[in-house]
Amino acid sequence: MLLLQPIVRGPWVLQRTPRLAAVACGSHPRACVGWTPPRTHGTWSAGGSSRRWKVTAVGALLGLGAGLAYGDHRRQAEEADPKAAARPQAPYPVFTRQEVGRHRSPAERVWVTYGGEVFDITDFVELHPGGPSKILLAAGGALEPFWAMYAVHSQGHVLEILREYKVGELSPEEQSQPAQGDPYAGDPPRHPALKVNSLKPFNAEPPAELLSENYLTPSPLFFKRNHLPVPAVDPATYRLEVEGPGGRTLTLSLPELKSRFPKHEVTATLQCAGNRRSEMNSVRPVKGLEWGIAAISTARWGGARLRDVLTQAGYGEAEEEAGERHVCFEGLDKDLSGAAYGASIPYGKAMGPGGDVLLAYEMNGEELPRDHGYPLRVVVPGVVGARNVKWLGRVSVSREESPSHWQQNDYKGFSPSVDWATVDYTTAPAIQELPIQSAITDPPPGATVPPTEITVKGYAWSGGGRGVVRVDVSLDGGRTWHVAEMAGEEQPLGRAWAWRLWQLTAPVPPGSSALDIVCKAVDDSYNVQPDTVEPIWNLRGVLSNAWHRVRVSVAQD
Amino acid sequence: MLLLQPIVRGPWVLQRTPRLAAVACGSHPRACVGWTPPRTHGTWSAGGSSRRWKVTAVGALLGLGAGLAYGDHRRQAEEADPKAAARPQAPYPVFTRQEVGRHRSPAERVWVTYGGEVFDITDFVELHPGGPSKILLAAGGALEPFWAMYAVHSQGHVLEILREYKVGELSPEEQSQPAQGDPYAGDPPRHPALKVNSLKPFNAEPPAELLSENYLTPSPLFFKRNHLPVPAVDPATYRLEVEGPGGRTLTLSLPELKSRFPKHEVTATLQCAGNRRSEMNSVRPVKGLEWGIAAISTARWGGARLRDVLTQAGYGEAEEEAGERHVCFEGLDKDLSGAAYGASIPYGKAMGPGGDVLLAYEMNGEELPRDHGYPLRVVVPGVVGARNVKWLGRVSVSREESPSHWQQNDYKGFSPSVDWATVDYTTAPAIQELPIQSAITDPPPGATVPPTEITVKGYAWSGGGRGVVRVDVSLDGGRTWHVAEMAGEEQPLGRAWAWRLWQLTAPVPPGSSALDIVCKAVDDSYNVQPDTVEPIWNLRGVLSNAWHRVRVSVAQD
Repeated sequence: MLLLQPIVRGPWVLQRTPRLAAVACGSHPRACVGWTPPRTHGTWSAGGSSRRWKVTAVGALLGLGAGLAYGDHRRQAEEADPKAAARPQAPYPVFTRQEVGRHRSPAERVWVTYGGEVFDITDFVELHPGGPSKILLAAGGALEPFWAMYAVHSQGHVLEILREYKVGELSPEEQSQPAQGDPYAGDPPRHPALKVNSLKPFNAEPPAELLSENYLTPSPLFFKRNHLPVPAVDPATYRLEVEGPGGRTLTLSLPELKSRFPKHEVTATLQCAGNRRSEMNSVRPVKGLEWGIAAISTARWGGARLRDVLTQAGYGEAEEEAGERHVCFEGLDKDLSGAAYGASIPYGKAMGPGGDVLLAYEMNGEELPRDHGYPLRVVVPGVVGARNVKWLGRVSVSREESPSHWQQNDYKGFSPSVDWATVDYTTAPAIQELPIQSAITDPPPGATVPPTEITVKGYAWSGGGRGVVRVDVSLDGGRTWHVAEMAGEEQPLGRAWAWRLWQLTAPVPPGSSALDIVCKAVDDSYNVQPDTVEPIWNLRGVLSNAWHRVRVSVAQD
Repeated sequence: MLLLQPIVRGPWVLQRTPRLAAVACGSHPRACVGWTPPRTHGTWSAGGSSRRWKVTAVGALLGLGAGLAYGDHRRQAEEADPKAAARPQAPYPVFTRQEVGRHRSPAERVWVTYGGEVFDITDFVELHPGGPSKILLAAGGALEPFWAMYAVHSQGHVLEILREYKVGELSPEEQSQPAQGDPYAGDPPRHPALKVNSLKPFNAEPPAELLSENYLTPSPLFFKRNHLPVPAVDPATYRLEVEGPGGRTLTLSLPELKSRFPKHEVTATLQCAGNRRSEMNSVRPVKGLEWGIAAISTARWGGARLRDVLTQAGYGEAEEEAGERHVCFEGLDKDLSGAAYGASIPYGKAMGPGGDVLLAYEMNGEELPRDHGYPLRVVVPGVVGARNVKWLGRVSVSREESPSHWQQNDYKGFSPSVDWATVDYTTAPAIQELPIQSAITDPPPGATVPPTEITVKGYAWSGGGRGVVRVDVSLDGGRTWHVAEMAGEEQPLGRAWAWRLWQLTAPVPPGSSALDIVCKAVDDSYNVQPDTVEPIWNLRGVLSNAWHRVRVSVAQD
């Protein structure tokens, strides 16, 4: 069974990490590029050009949808390096892997290989969309294992940019060295109905029409958003480490987690921050996976309450009263530097009696599937998917948020005026609770509907436990509205963690040739969705919650 | 001093209430008109016409902005009563007040007097915008004291409608009977800068430009929203009654409240549900006071924590765990039937450690002003003004929300498709937490600004303790955006009860003759304001939080 493989797979991960430790500086790119202090919130000047370079590198996303950035960077690299034209031309000098291996830092120049070619990428390091620290992991060696990790590199223009930095070729005998293993080879099989947005790491959503068929999304169809390869965890040797106050660590096996703490069950909807990004992307290009409307799903989760486990580890109200704290999570899914996926949530959410945060070992009444965090994950109801850390390895409490790239330099919202040249991640809070959301799952865009009556279906959900109190549906682009009927369980006030599925059956206005169907929801704080996408556009394409629109044709008699 | 007057003023209140008790049925109009069970949420059929009558009467607001409804009702009354044309014509018969006094119920016909005229309003009772129970309070007597209570009646068309029901005249000697007292005669003096939206009851807002001058709004300029006359409370005899579990009542004098419970201070913004109603009204007419953008203010409140007082009264976590409960408040301000202004909040908000709900006796470091609830009021941070009950007389805990008109049949949000003929107040939750809000306080609309640089100022706030994380400002109607600078205190996560004042200084685009200034704010759940007013329009004109727009001219060189 795949599940019984060792925790860390792929020998080159273990081999390369120590060698590169001096060059790379962990998962937090900010540490590498000279961190600039937070700017006053509210200036809109672009800042000096050298600062702009740094911020651009810092702000760039890690290996996802980064293709877009390459065009910019190429142009910027040409502007920044007047010697670009002076680079070696064919016939190229020939190097050994050992010679390439001597170039591992900007001081000794940064060289890498791809296939049989050698590249001096020193001038590109700061321009790397995934951050300089990530590209430096490959310094002195081959790019292939890294590109295998982040499949976004498998695009023609990436290789084209790389070739501009070519300085030589490998000796013929070294070119035949076997290729590195695929870190994703151990990923589990997936349901064929899923619409795959990225294969490596695996990111996929169910067909929208299937989404509203079930209040609880069947686990195989539940949207999948992995940041790294799925780790293979042996349940027999698995241990959760919980860092207690004063350095004491509580270590729990799976049987201990299940027997020492009461099992608590919560029906909760999880939504990716990038759900509906494709609509934002169609307004102006953003960086990120091209999610449709189905990066959202609902399951019944079972596990131990995080507050029970933290209490057992020695935490209590005293910590909360002593000032703001955060509960930090680390996954067992690790990048090439050995840094784990990580995230944090506010201490009050973790410890509050109504927070319902779980260390879940069950999904829809069964053991967690591997894609959803087997054997243990965090479920943080009402909070963006990214904080629901899967394959949970470690829990700690800190005065600071998780130092993880995904907490510090991703999953934040910005003004539409902010671009990659001006973004400053320190000025925006990490996304936790999500805003009110709804979408039409049926009919699909472009469908032909009968001329008599139409049934429109969809979902609606809001973050922070705020219940959905109403969904308005329009058949005429928002000029007139109907109130949809909602299904779904009644949920306690402030703990409405699950979506409401809704539907509307209405007569088709006589003589219509097309309908512009629109939905918008209202939560119990009476927050509403914004009318249009453009004013909430942001460079990462997150928090896309404008009215959802589906245009259909009406069959003519 | 005004403050030393007896609690209940105006002898006719005490005299009339018992006499009319059998006819009127308290402050809950629903009880009077035959309550129809909740409809399935989501039908958009208009319902039967008889039901529509009832709901219209139920849903109409109590004595405020009701003028609008009269037109509808007049038309409906004509349709409903085919005998309307058969009413007496001049010369009219003459009656004594004693004769009029025999007509106090629909069975004996409902007669009232105004000036020297007598009216049979039996057919109008169900059509009264303030509800049948309210108009029945005047049955058999004079309308003047009631119209003095609700100044909305002082409009020409109201008298015009009344005259259609004329059946006679008072005998000349009875016409000279002295007029009833003005229940508002004891209201306190107010600041002359306030913009008065209604004098009786007193409702006023400060000039918008003054609002952003102070983080803490000076108490005389703090917006005032009274529903009834300001009661004159004697602090020496004042007692707060807190109904404990099992029928035990905790009675607290002011000195006891101040000495037995630690004083807690909170800086909190209060906002009327109707703030910015005038913008909604300009899209399509709504019912309610014509508030501008300044029905929102911020103060430093001091008092006892509600949770400390409820704990002293015997409440604890057991109640919360036993299911949903509500903490109900009653004011000492009473209507003509003797029913108090009332409201409730969820038990969890009242008892939660982070709820910060106060029984406040101080405002901005001084004793509460009379207009703001002297000697004691509730301050519910993050929650709509209407639940912050002033002149607090009684606190109780219940499985049901407050039965008050203002909790049940007002201060709720509806779809733009719902009108007074179809509204069903049971289908919408009482407004508690308010949505994200912001507005431009300076420059004022229509101002002329310099052609070089402009400074725009405003406020931003969100309900539920959600902090404002960003304000975007546009000078070109929303095509491009700047991020404003925010002032104001840092507030703990989840307890951001106070607004942020913001400003933006930006160059005026060369060649502009006018600017279309727009602002929109984002809270820490990344909720945003909707783009436009029309899709959030609702019949009561509450929750008006679309982008705020101010158009100005640019001075030409």
